[in-house]
Amino acid sequence: MNRVVMTTLAAAVALTSLGAAAQFQKPEDAIKYRQSALTVLANHFGRIAAMAKGSVPFDAKAAQDNAAVVVTMSKLPWIAFGPGTDKGLPTRAKADIWKEQAKFKDLQSKMIAEAEKFEAATKTGNLDSIKAAVGPLGSACKACHDDFRAEKYSSN
Amino acid sequence: MNRVVMTTLAAAVALTSLGAAAQFQKPEDAIKYRQSALTVLANHFGRIAAMAKGSVPFDAKAAQDNAAVVVTMSKLPWIAFGPGTDKGLPTRAKADIWKEQAKFKDLQSKMIAEAEKFEAATKTGNLDSIKAAVGPLGSACKACHDDFRAEKYSSN
Repeated sequence: MNRVVMTTLAAAVALTSLGAAAQFQKPEDAIKYRQSALTVLANHFGRIAAMAKGSVPFDAKAAQDNAAVVVTMSKLPWIAFGPGTDKGLPTRAKADIWKEQAKFKDLQSKMIAEAEKFEAATKTGNLDSIKAAVGPLGSACKACHDDFRAEKYSSN
Repeated sequence: MNRVVMTTLAAAVALTSLGAAAQFQKPEDAIKYRQSALTVLANHFGRIAAMAKGSVPFDAKAAQDNAAVVVTMSKLPWIAFGPGTDKGLPTRAKADIWKEQAKFKDLQSKMIAEAEKFEAATKTGNLDSIKAAVGPLGSACKACHDDFRAEKYSSN
């Protein structure tokens, strides 16, 4: 690894650490926060997915409102995966998150981009457009879960 | 209680129930969701409160971004306090929530209104305006906690 890359990585780690230190007093605060943000995200995505599946009546305004929450939440959890937040509360975060930061960040960016496309689809008010956007966002969530989320919670 | 009031209350309960049933499969889903939304709300309010206290450097853009999250979150938890969600996971929600719905809803509305005023203060970019808005929002949170949040989590 060349020196420029290493310096950039070191700076990124330092920034993440400062950010996390500023927002979270303890690792457990960070873990609780990121799990909370992802719970809210999943719930609001689920509300629209239920409309797409037809298990809940389509409501264009509600879909758009829920998608706005999805976009807001898609950006929040990541600052809470700072160094030292692998333990403190039961978590499904795999240790690979802190070994493969570039890959983890790439998957975050892709998910955020899909959430924005998803919100754009809800703004059309067209159920078929929304149905078409559910899959790509779901896949972006799954891509990260496949690599970085354990089957079971850790015991601490 | 007169008949009009009773009919209105019955309709409100029915709507809440339908809403909750649509969004949440089980009471534990509702409890987890509302706790998550309130956790995210408290975190982002705390980020700005830390700037107001001077324990974190003032960043006008960050304050505004965090306040937008606070406003979004201020509106979310309430649908998850539907009938039957007093048990299912450890919760600090007091039984009075379901006995004093009008009062509970009034406190929700007041908190949402204060969150919106708080966001408006962050949009001025003026730290003194933000400092002045922290107290009223904190008080609106506390008013509900005082009446409807138990000291300790329930055991189920």
